[in-house]
Amino acid sequence: MEFLVRVDASRAYELPDEERADLIERERARGRELLADGTIQRFWRVPGRRGNVGIWSTPDADTLATVLAELPVYPYADIEVTPLATHPMTH
Amino acid sequence: MEFLVRVDASRAYELPDEERADLIERERARGRELLADGTIQRFWRVPGRRGNVGIWSTPDADTLATVLAELPVYPYADIEVTPLATHPMTH
Amino acid sequence: MEFLVRVDASRAYELPDEERADLIERERARGRELLADGTIQRFWRVPGRRGNVGIWSTPDADTLATVLAELPVYPYADIEVTPLATHPMTH
Amino acid sequence: MEFLVRVDASRAYELPDEERADLIERERARGRELLADGTIQRFWRVPGRRGNVGIWSTPDADTLATVLAELPVYPYADIEVTPLATHPMTH
Amino acid sequence: MEFLVRVDASRAYELPDEERADLIERERARGRELLADGTIQRFWRVPGRRGNVGIWSTPDADTLATVLAELPVYPYADIEVTPLATHPMTH
Amino acid sequence: MEFLVRVDASRAYELPDEERADLIERERARGRELLADGTIQRFWRVPGRRGNVGIWSTPDADTLATVLAELPVYPYADIEVTPLATHPMTH
Amino acid sequence: MEFLVRVDASRAYELPDEERADLIERERARGRELLADGTIQRFWRVPGRRGNVGIWSTPDADTLATVLAELPVYPYADIEVTPLATHPMTH
Amino acid sequence: MEFLVRVDASRAYELPDEERADLIERERARGRELLADGTIQRFWRVPGRRGNVGIWSTPDADTLATVLAELPVYPYADIEVTPLATHPMTH
Amino acid sequence: MEFLVRVDASRAYELPDEERADLIERERARGRELLADGTIQRFWRVPGRRGNVGIWSTPDADTLATVLAELPVYPYADIEVTPLATHPMTH
Amino acid sequence: MEFLVRVDASRAYELPDEERADLIERERARGRELLADGTIQRFWRVPGRRGNVGIWSTPDADTLATVLAELPVYPYADIEVTPLATHPMTH
Repeated sequence: MEFLVRVDASRAYELPDEERADLIERERARGRELLADGTIQRFWRVPGRRGNVGIWSTPDADTLATVLAELPVYPYADIEVTPLATHPMTH
Repeated sequence: MEFLVRVDASRAYELPDEERADLIERERARGRELLADGTIQRFWRVPGRRGNVGIWSTPDADTLATVLAELPVYPYADIEVTPLATHPMTH
Repeated sequence: MEFLVRVDASRAYELPDEERADLIERERARGRELLADGTIQRFWRVPGRRGNVGIWSTPDADTLATVLAELPVYPYADIEVTPLATHPMTH
Repeated sequence: MEFLVRVDASRAYELPDEERADLIERERARGRELLADGTIQRFWRVPGRRGNVGIWSTPDADTLATVLAELPVYPYADIEVTPLATHPMTH
Repeated sequence: MEFLVRVDASRAYELPDEERADLIERERARGRELLADGTIQRFWRVPGRRGNVGIWSTPDADTLATVLAELPVYPYADIEVTPLATHPMTH
Repeated sequence: MEFLVRVDASRAYELPDEERADLIERERARGRELLADGTIQRFWRVPGRRGNVGIWSTPDADTLATVLAELPVYPYADIEVTPLATHPMTH
Repeated sequence: MEFLVRVDASRAYELPDEERADLIERERARGRELLADGTIQRFWRVPGRRGNVGIWSTPDADTLATVLAELPVYPYADIEVTPLATHPMTH
Repeated sequence: MEFLVRVDASRAYELPDEERADLIERERARGRELLADGTIQRFWRVPGRRGNVGIWSTPDADTLATVLAELPVYPYADIEVTPLATHPMTH
Repeated sequence: MEFLVRVDASRAYELPDEERADLIERERARGRELLADGTIQRFWRVPGRRGNVGIWSTPDADTLATVLAELPVYPYADIEVTPLATHPMTH
Repeated sequence: MEFLVRVDASRAYELPDEERADLIERERARGRELLADGTIQRFWRVPGRRGNVGIWSTPDADTLATVLAELPVYPYADIEVTPLATHPMTH
């Protein structure tokens, strides 16, 4: 199943510099894994927003909930998930 | 997968009486089928709201999208879907 | 009476690690009691949200207000309650 | 149980004059019955708003949902219900 | 004149425990006085909300503004006031 | 007592031309009376908005509710009222 | 450049049946062209929503504005566009 | 004085085709005059939105209110005006 | 030009007592000057709100922006400005 | 491509005085560079708002995202970007 996932990580910018640098490094390492295994399919910045938007693919909502909750940025992130359904025109 | 589904059918109340009575009858017939086959698991009114809230269960988002789009009330309904994930405490 | 209860516990994620771990442990212990005695009937995570959504059942709004206010997470939680009414189709 | 009920009946003002006059008459007749039997406890206008706000008392949410749905103004009304709980200070 | 007053005191829950206990005690003492002198006519909790909703009665808006600004919880409270007008049906 | 009153009359612009011209004429006649008797103290347009904002003065909220409900534009207007209280600095 | 485009076509559901069937047919024909020429890259339904969400790719905002304005559904659609920027992690 | 002016003309799309074509023609003629005399300084479409956004310059708010109210599209437009002030950095 | 100015100073209530007392004193001194020189024409409290609403008059938006930015409370205030235009009825 | 960019820098006002003074100095130095190289085309204060609004021009959304993320104020700023498209009337 695919999901549109918007991550707003503004609150991470309130962390002390060193702590934030460490968080970003861990988040990126995890992001690369999720891109490599296909959990994250597409991934963009939105100009001006301290966060990202992406198309995620997981077997079900349980897996997605777990993967998101294990992100290093999770304690600092407002995350909005929209379930996506195949469009008849794209079959 | 389970979904929290809120249906706001206010606009159906702008239909002529006969047309609305027919719509309600068809909607109820379809609702009974969906309750019988387990697609709708629980189903409530919200006092004062012209609509309902329910727990729906479908194999995936594609099936949910199709089932909702085939509801008789669909052309008149604002529908809000929240994907639900199993809570670790309920295993 | 049944209620749809959404709990947003984002603010608990601002607590120091140890304090938060202790809070979660107490919250889960209390949650298990409320599931066992039927106060909480169903209970889900919402992918991406630091909180949960559930169907609660209490004799009346007074009991619900008291039970919610005694949750360990209450000082950190934004809680939204929707009263539910039996739907004629489910009799 | 008591509920705070806000009724916004703006849409009724789109009815033809005669139809609206008839609706108001039926709504008032019903309102007087609900005041007389204690379902509506207090009842106010809000300056500038085409509707009202009141304290309603019913045995449970089912009764409230039914009473509201039978109001003559129901097809034209946006109704917002807040469940109320006894405050410890007022015992 | 009567007013619908909603008090959201969530921010008071960020105070240290002792300070909050003291605040609550002072707020309750003041609340009892306002109930006794008729300034507060009715007073409820809203399940899940860290605050209250009430019907207040003061000679005018000046008095209400002053009474609210002198509440111990005032520095921590978001307060929403709706002016109420007598409904023709309740004469 | 003074009130800040915002009137949004967008819906009046959906009326047929002649009906709207008649409405505006009656509204202006009534407006001049309310300015003359001091009910409306100040009165402005907001650039781009199909409506107005004003400072109204009535003995109490009951009078304000009645005066507003008798405005010719009332069936077409969304009106927002904010009660105003004397500021200590302006005594 | 890529854009996240959400189309809400609820208002098209107020058209007479025949007119709506014709609109859908024309919209789908145009959609197939835009998928074929790469203007629309991905395209989904959102369960319950009368519309779609997609990733669009055009040389610039001018082209996107023109393509969207020429959609058959444009007069009936609320369209929300978010500009997307390459994420450093996806280089 | 300069103003940021956002015009949402969605409602004009509910007009019959011929009436809308006539409205657009008159609106464009007026727009060219306002560009020519410097009232509108800059003027853009927003992709997907049925309207525009621009930088307007008028001697004061009175003139702006009058110019906007005389636009052919005014009866169908939701217009939002933000006053702009010179930035110290641009002197 | 006249402006409707709403000042929400809730955040100033998070200051230590002494600092807040000093801020209020400086703000009131400045407020008296602005009332004296006609920059602030009218000025009210809104019951329950930690702030004020007023009618301000300055030659243009530049002056207003500067005067507001120099208020002692400015770093702690959310300020909302609505430009006002003379109403034809008040000429 | 041009973008309407609104920057809300309220959170920067929570910094200690010296840190904020340094931030403002660095932000202004960077702003002057961006004005000089044409990235920022126009730039205004909005009376009462702790931030600014401007018309920015960059080759594409990638460049804009990078330039915004490198602003000294970025960690403290809520930034809202609207893509702009040439209006047919301004060719």
